Amino acid sequence: MTSSAKLPGEFELIARYFAPLAKGFAGAYALLDDAAVITTQPGQQLVAKTDAIVAGVHFPADEAADLVARKALRVNLSDLAAKGAVPRCYMIDLVLPGTTTEDWVAAFASGLEQDQRTFGMHLIGGDTNMTPGPLTIAVMALGDIPNGKILRRGGARAGDMIFVTGVIGDASLGMAALHGALSELDTTTAGLLIDRYRLPVPRVELGPRLIGLASASIDVSDGLVADLGHICEVSGLGAVVEASRVPLSSAARATIAGDISRLDMALTGGDDYEILFTAAPAATDKIGDLSRASGVPITTIGHMCDVPRATQERVVVLDAAGEPMKLARRGWVHF
Amino acid sequence: MTSSAKLPGEFELIARYFAPLAKGFAGAYALLDDAAVITTQPGQQLVAKTDAIVAGVHFPADEAADLVARKALRVNLSDLAAKGAVPRCYMIDLVLPGTTTEDWVAAFASGLEQDQRTFGMHLIGGDTNMTPGPLTIAVMALGDIPNGKILRRGGARAGDMIFVTGVIGDASLGMAALHGALSELDTTTAGLLIDRYRLPVPRVELGPRLIGLASASIDVSDGLVADLGHICEVSGLGAVVEASRVPLSSAARATIAGDISRLDMALTGGDDYEILFTAAPAATDKIGDLSRASGVPITTIGHMCDVPRATQERVVVLDAAGEPMKLARRGWVHF
Repeated sequence: MTSSAKLPGEFELIARYFAPLAKGFAGAYALLDDAAVITTQPGQQLVAKTDAIVAGVHFPADEAADLVARKALRVNLSDLAAKGAVPRCYMIDLVLPGTTTEDWVAAFASGLEQDQRTFGMHLIGGDTNMTPGPLTIAVMALGDIPNGKILRRGGARAGDMIFVTGVIGDASLGMAALHGALSELDTTTAGLLIDRYRLPVPRVELGPRLIGLASASIDVSDGLVADLGHICEVSGLGAVVEASRVPLSSAARATIAGDISRLDMALTGGDDYEILFTAAPAATDKIGDLSRASGVPITTIGHMCDVPRATQERVVVLDAAGEPMKLARRGWVHF
Repeated sequence: MTSSAKLPGEFELIARYFAPLAKGFAGAYALLDDAAVITTQPGQQLVAKTDAIVAGVHFPADEAADLVARKALRVNLSDLAAKGAVPRCYMIDLVLPGTTTEDWVAAFASGLEQDQRTFGMHLIGGDTNMTPGPLTIAVMALGDIPNGKILRRGGARAGDMIFVTGVIGDASLGMAALHGALSELDTTTAGLLIDRYRLPVPRVELGPRLIGLASASIDVSDGLVADLGHICEVSGLGAVVEASRVPLSSAARATIAGDISRLDMALTGGDDYEILFTAAPAATDKIGDLSRASGVPITTIGHMCDVPRATQERVVVLDAAGEPMKLARRGWVHF
């Protein structure tokens, strides 16, 4: 609203730091117009996703600017990937505290630039505003998908196997470590976990290759159990997961070995940004081939079943002895 | 993050208040999936726009929830309209203070519902989060436009006439009145101005009908002079506006009659959400026809010219005596 000694004006900021991010996308008009224009190729649809993140809620208030930028983008890319879409472009609303410096904006834009290159997308528009509150960033990401091929939550069938990419639990254990819990961990282990929390790795290349294989798909953001619950609800099914088959990093395994109750945190904590999907058992071989070809571990962790008795949770997690685990919480609660 | 006595959970909120707003848009999957899918018809492109608004910055912190919702949507629709696009769908990120009540959310959703019906669009996705800061709302709106027909800032030619829809200045005078300035105004006059500030009326029906007539177009959000400056910059031209031709409501005229310096506020204050466009003189008759057919006043206020001397502003506003006005500020400064 008022000019600030700390920042150049909005138009100057856009020209200096954000317009370069629109280069290569003709319809973004170098961010010199009021809106962008997007063309879809024949036979293609657009997949649209938005997620906002708030300092002190979704990331530490003193997080490095480039990591904030990349996390803001990546939490959206993770959804596009789980839906089978190829990322194309995004818009960003930056709501900045009055203390924001030009250096911060420069580092933020450089984080975006780095991830644009990694994931092959362009900035096509946005908005910058000041707030008396915490830094808040909303991203809307758009991706391409062949007509009718979007991977839904609701396509699972009873008997389908449940698969997950990568490893589960690092991010939630990392968040706990960042907040000073797990203080017995050595620096390396804690550092590995914390890095996974600070910078998720969306499965952008793998996602589109699940088209034709996955019957249902979701990214793991609320937590493995909660997100599998989402697939169950929309598919009208239940699920059985064997905890011992859930893939863990060696850092997570070491952390859980120190206190088995931390397995709960890993299974329900969220922020993994892996893809959780279901597929017919007949697809298992092809999924194994895809895992080898892509270099992304894909692990079977259970199967879909008819809805259990109404008194039970839709998702049953069996411990090593085959007994249902009592989970302290079912997943990330937004509020 | 933590459960609140004031609000039901996020999923419950979505099911109760937001999923109904997605009805009628198949690709929104009743907000039960992670992303939406959008199909463009052959020969059409999508126009994408995002704008965020913050309580206490863009609207009074105690503003009625339904008006907040409608303003958040309308500031985006105004851009789509000025670009010639027909609104189709939108996503919304709601960043809510901890004091938010369910009644507030209900009223907010009802405001969205009302405007969806008015403007013919659907909610297709979004995100809700809590913040320790002020209420912040980001909207991303998408509209349809025939291939290559988007109305740009940069298409004006020297000699083009400058047109503006509706009236200018009500909103900025209304904001001043709301903040306790202009205290000599009678209640009716102040109320008319304040209403225009609180709830803009985007020119959604008119915008697409400017395709084929307008050479450049922008919506008036930063202020008439600043937004005309944007057209000038991108078109590489200057502009001359005759202040006496700028259309004013009778409320604005009465307010300015009390203090001629308020004309400055009207011309530069912003928040008008009218369409400012340029067109060849030969299009004047057709524009008059369009104005009559649509019932939207469209007024000629000046003309585009070659760039004036480098020492001058690109936009020159002439007073009633034909002398260039010295404007106290050039337009809304975001920060």
